[in-house]
Amino acid sequence: MITRSEQRRAQRRALEYLERAHVIMTAEERERVEVADFGLSMLEYFGVQTLTYFNTERICAKQIVLFPNQICPEHWHPRVGEDPGKEEIMRVRWGIVYVYIPGAEIEPSVRDRIPERKEYFTVGKEVILRPGEQIILPPGTVHWFQAGPEGAVIDDFSTTSRDVLDQFTDPDIVRTTQVVD
Amino acid sequence: MITRSEQRRAQRRALEYLERAHVIMTAEERERVEVADFGLSMLEYFGVQTLTYFNTERICAKQIVLFPNQICPEHWHPRVGEDPGKEEIMRVRWGIVYVYIPGAEIEPSVRDRIPERKEYFTVGKEVILRPGEQIILPPGTVHWFQAGPEGAVIDDFSTTSRDVLDQFTDPDIVRTTQVVD
Repeated sequence: MITRSEQRRAQRRALEYLERAHVIMTAEERERVEVADFGLSMLEYFGVQTLTYFNTERICAKQIVLFPNQICPEHWHPRVGEDPGKEEIMRVRWGIVYVYIPGAEIEPSVRDRIPERKEYFTVGKEVILRPGEQIILPPGTVHWFQAGPEGAVIDDFSTTSRDVLDQFTDPDIVRTTQVVD
Repeated sequence: MITRSEQRRAQRRALEYLERAHVIMTAEERERVEVADFGLSMLEYFGVQTLTYFNTERICAKQIVLFPNQICPEHWHPRVGEDPGKEEIMRVRWGIVYVYIPGAEIEPSVRDRIPERKEYFTVGKEVILRPGEQIILPPGTVHWFQAGPEGAVIDDFSTTSRDVLDQFTDPDIVRTTQVVD
């Protein structure tokens, strides 16, 4: 849950990051940056800001903004009928992003950077992405990611996106953000 | 057919456009900008320069550079087995792009901008894309596009890309560019 004013503040702040990363947007797009707190009500710690360029039956492209040290909690994109699940490519445009996937335990120094709800992070193979670097996440890959201390702007390309069907390790997560006045 | 030195010159020139558009690339990517002359040997008139970020079984993302007034000739992405054909979204990042799709005849003023082989351009519904603007091209859509007088840089998102299977109106086009010393 976030307040309306918290939402507006995060939207404005996300636009500043997008401009810093030289993202060109239409006026209409500038009005529809989404803010997600994953229902945890700790946006500074856990959240993403996204601008979806398009999302068709087959492909989707978004810009993701992370504020400094902000975490997108551990999740995966499950099979949906004939669809084996969302395949996603994250390409960093500005800042640094630490991506974690299966293959190793979470290092103690990394666990220290998770400010709350540490028990709901399980995969720890680290891939560090700097500007111009990218990672391909096959369908079903459990992953979470965190911005470096300056925040980050990510080009996010994928097959069709059905955010509400994403599966999260943390049972308290709600993908649809509730905004209150 | 292009010469090796023509290819190198076009690659360097494309990199200048990509930098002007604030595209961030790795050193490895800077080395693999592709130059296509469509076998017409008139690169200034007909050609595209592309940097493919990735091309999986399901999705593909490229950066396309067009030099001033350069044309990507009329083509479409056909059905391939189970795949209904490539779905493509072009989003302009820098410059202006004139896209032509079915729905109207080619206006005389537009035909005047085609310097050669005018007979192989048939669709004329014009969509003008400025920075931050995009068009969704459903599978099978016949289309061609031309940069404005300053050239253009385009974000190109699509389902999997099989360039060699693209169909062109001009029967003399060869999609694989031959480079000679």
